[in-house]
Amino acid sequence: MRTQDILSKHPNPSQNLDQIVALVNSAFACEQCCTSCADACLNEDGDMDLRYCIRTNLDCADICATTGRALSRQTQPNVQLLRAQLEACRIACDACADECEKHADVHDHCRVCMECCRECSDACRSLLQAMPQGAAA
Amino acid sequence: MRTQDILSKHPNPSQNLDQIVALVNSAFACEQCCTSCADACLNEDGDMDLRYCIRTNLDCADICATTGRALSRQTQPNVQLLRAQLEACRIACDACADECEKHADVHDHCRVCMECCRECSDACRSLLQAMPQGAAA
Amino acid sequence: MRTQDILSKHPNPSQNLDQIVALVNSAFACEQCCTSCADACLNEDGDMDLRYCIRTNLDCADICATTGRALSRQTQPNVQLLRAQLEACRIACDACADECEKHADVHDHCRVCMECCRECSDACRSLLQAMPQGAAA
Amino acid sequence: MRTQDILSKHPNPSQNLDQIVALVNSAFACEQCCTSCADACLNEDGDMDLRYCIRTNLDCADICATTGRALSRQTQPNVQLLRAQLEACRIACDACADECEKHADVHDHCRVCMECCRECSDACRSLLQAMPQGAAA
Repeated sequence: MRTQDILSKHPNPSQNLDQIVALVNSAFACEQCCTSCADACLNEDGDMDLRYCIRTNLDCADICATTGRALSRQTQPNVQLLRAQLEACRIACDACADECEKHADVHDHCRVCMECCRECSDACRSLLQAMPQGAAA
Repeated sequence: MRTQDILSKHPNPSQNLDQIVALVNSAFACEQCCTSCADACLNEDGDMDLRYCIRTNLDCADICATTGRALSRQTQPNVQLLRAQLEACRIACDACADECEKHADVHDHCRVCMECCRECSDACRSLLQAMPQGAAA
Repeated sequence: MRTQDILSKHPNPSQNLDQIVALVNSAFACEQCCTSCADACLNEDGDMDLRYCIRTNLDCADICATTGRALSRQTQPNVQLLRAQLEACRIACDACADECEKHADVHDHCRVCMECCRECSDACRSLLQAMPQGAAA
Repeated sequence: MRTQDILSKHPNPSQNLDQIVALVNSAFACEQCCTSCADACLNEDGDMDLRYCIRTNLDCADICATTGRALSRQTQPNVQLLRAQLEACRIACDACADECEKHADVHDHCRVCMECCRECSDACRSLLQAMPQGAAA
């Protein structure tokens, strides 16, 4: 990912650039992990019911993708909109990490996915903290 | 869209199916409108500064896509996650409708897009109202 | 969907607008159907192995989404790029329809999804035929 | 990105894993770059007409996202489908790189984006070469 490089070349670069870069990188990595975890879960033959894990992986992948894209834009940011999407992303990542954690001992892909989700959830929290409630991103 | 048809064939169809169908249809229609409005704005040669309109169109398209997909799934819904995504979608649609409204007299595509966004925002609100705070979707 | 309405308001509307509108509508409807069919398949308890069906549904949903978005843009179209994406979409829709057909008698959602995919595949074919190999879309 | 890590934990990992990992990483990095480049172009006040650059950036971002997701799945791959999507991705990345190259001296974000697109185009080519025309991915 060249996120840091390209975001810093914007004519009007954002405040909080370090937290934005961390969030964007984590969000795309989490989209990738969740997509692969859903696909791997589909092929597990054990006794565990992985249906909720797959569903939450798919939701989390889509939500991370959208959040990573929205934070990749720096034109006149709408803070209320971005905060709401970051909040949805944090909740999706927490839900997916909690579910993957239940299967982390048995399925290695769930352990990797749990780590991706925790990282992205932390990045959401850091950016939400850095971004003032009513000021520009 | 055959949303009503396919959602009703699920082994465990959701409660609030009418509101979910309305939301899913509005969300995909709004993704389409916002994608086309951003592209049309890019080609307008007038005096208006349409940069914030384009940016908000792109955010709104992505957020509507993700919301339409998440509500198209009926497996063991996580209500907290879905409510947060619906709230982000409502805010994005309101922001995009408000911005498009400013150019609706001059640019017909902004008027159509404003109508799509208002419809999707209303569908978010109706579903948020129907979906109990802590119960299944 | 207000696709016809918004595409016709573009400052430089495309040739082949009827075929483009049909394709865009079919592509978003197919994304929706494939997303719901994958989710419904996940909850079927019968003897059928639906893993390839789910995987192909997920690929087809993503490919239809991207194709619907790309054809929603009318700015200086790159015909070679659009033709390649339409070709990928046609192949994905055919593959998904063929797989869903195998379960259409048993699972109603697979029958609805098959119909969506066939419609979108036909729309790809019509647009590919209308769009000259080397001219503007 | 933990692509290598999670793809290798799949119950039936793909052949050509190195090329798949390279492609998936490049595709998500390119989606990110193209999204940011479109947004930065929108804010440039110079004499250059960046409309085709923005449009191609948006197409390329969507196509890379879909390609990165499809190759993140390892369940019973449909080689014809994946090859067609990789071919569309290669063409989109080449088109976007060629356009960004024209502004690379003036706009640093276009230079970074050009590099991302060239890398992803190369990764498409390598994977297309490694993946047999009619065998499993």
